[in-house]
Amino acid sequence: MAGTNDPIRRLVLIGVGLIGGSLARALKLRGAVGEVVGVARTAETLDAARSLGVIDSAETVPARAVRGADIVVIATPVRTMEGILEQIAPELGADTVLTDVGSVKCYVVDLVRRRAPHRIGRFVPGHPIAGTERSGVQASFPELFHDRHVVLTPVAETDSDALEAVSAMWKLTGADVLYMDVDRHDQLLAITSHLPHVAAYSLVNYVAEHPESATLLDLAAGGFYDFTRIASSDAVMWRDICLTNRQPLLDALDGYRAWIDRMVEAIERGDGERLHEWFDRAKRCRDNGLVRKGKSRDG
Amino acid sequence: MAGTNDPIRRLVLIGVGLIGGSLARALKLRGAVGEVVGVARTAETLDAARSLGVIDSAETVPARAVRGADIVVIATPVRTMEGILEQIAPELGADTVLTDVGSVKCYVVDLVRRRAPHRIGRFVPGHPIAGTERSGVQASFPELFHDRHVVLTPVAETDSDALEAVSAMWKLTGADVLYMDVDRHDQLLAITSHLPHVAAYSLVNYVAEHPESATLLDLAAGGFYDFTRIASSDAVMWRDICLTNRQPLLDALDGYRAWIDRMVEAIERGDGERLHEWFDRAKRCRDNGLVRKGKSRDG
Repeated sequence: MAGTNDPIRRLVLIGVGLIGGSLARALKLRGAVGEVVGVARTAETLDAARSLGVIDSAETVPARAVRGADIVVIATPVRTMEGILEQIAPELGADTVLTDVGSVKCYVVDLVRRRAPHRIGRFVPGHPIAGTERSGVQASFPELFHDRHVVLTPVAETDSDALEAVSAMWKLTGADVLYMDVDRHDQLLAITSHLPHVAAYSLVNYVAEHPESATLLDLAAGGFYDFTRIASSDAVMWRDICLTNRQPLLDALDGYRAWIDRMVEAIERGDGERLHEWFDRAKRCRDNGLVRKGKSRDG
Repeated sequence: MAGTNDPIRRLVLIGVGLIGGSLARALKLRGAVGEVVGVARTAETLDAARSLGVIDSAETVPARAVRGADIVVIATPVRTMEGILEQIAPELGADTVLTDVGSVKCYVVDLVRRRAPHRIGRFVPGHPIAGTERSGVQASFPELFHDRHVVLTPVAETDSDALEAVSAMWKLTGADVLYMDVDRHDQLLAITSHLPHVAAYSLVNYVAEHPESATLLDLAAGGFYDFTRIASSDAVMWRDICLTNRQPLLDALDGYRAWIDRMVEAIERGDGERLHEWFDRAKRCRDNGLVRKGKSRDG
């Protein structure tokens, strides 16, 4: 069992992409883990992970991999988690700590309640707010979580020692660990992360489908590219987030649309004073203490 | 008079900010200009510009400055241009070439037709698609226009030698000069530049006015900050753009809102296939050849 001060003897990583790979690299760099077992669907990913030194051994069958694990980290797109939980549930040891890195948390908690109810106490829902628009183990690096927030959303049943083990693991990566109610996490992240992605995807699709799209893209300034950088994020991951955090995201989109409507009305009536007030507030809001240095990676 | 191959003996810069300052620096670096006369409202700006070597002499009265100029560049927020044109119109020499750097062009052409109708043939509407979210002469640098588009939108009356002089001036800064119909410029830029700004301002205002704004801003990942970088742009400049390119911007906002509505409907009905298709198209559209290296500055 992995308590706060125990080393992790056997860490099983289900999904060896940007997040899983970076976690393994960070722990290895700190000498905080014995063996890292990687599980992925393709031999290609596993070979790459092994040759990069991210994992020590490879498995394609999750149920076999999790036997004897201190900590199992599920780091795959959210909608693959149900199948994985179904497979590993019978094999999870009584002391094995289970955690995940999904960007939505209510959905994942529900999955564990349904698919591994006997292990809900050992499950620590987690969300590292870090990432880049690139994906895959090749893009992983050990400093990814440095000075980033990792949000843990324990539920009533969560064992305190399991929570401590996952918290200790993330702290070793240089992350700042926060605790939050699971519903609140999903509502807040819908605004700060899921909404901007949908807004960026909407803009790029609008331009892509415009009759003059080639000229538009040629004329586009840096602002357009910065604004839409997150539209290069992984399509499967973001589809899954939209489908599994539906209501909070729809609420956030409603709030955003209301603001666009206010902008439209002010432009229509030529209300320069109001526009200036809003633009100035945005500038101050973003400039004054909000832009923390190093905040150049996405989550 | 400044023809294509003539050096610019006297360049008058009305407005010595990021764009005007960078233009002067670039031309000086190429030895392409005799004297740069800077006009600004405040002694502070003029002193800074002079001590940075951006201008050679300073004026606070535009009408006095433009006498004997080869080229006059108006580089101030769009809605200050009317007053400036009114003041300088009687003093503009018959051969003096007048140009501007405004982000909207129909409005400026109309202004010149109304305020300096006798000089419409010498006026070359221009728009360098370059900039950063910073402003002011302190932020100026000679490479700002390197490999950037500068769009010139001549009208029926524009003298060809005036057009050539302005085109030659911009080419000396390393810019790629394009010619475009003035209406088309305003429609296309509404989509690629003005719309993303309003979208970013909307998002930041939504977050700023949210009851949990402090927590939201703390949780915000890099994606949010990249997405909203342009919301740190100059509030006066963007207010003016919204007020002077109203209809094209409203059309662009309509198109964008329609896309957000489509996203909302797909999320509501849980249409993962459609969401994946759109997200994947956005990723491909942005990744495949659209992200040109160095496109990290805004316009």
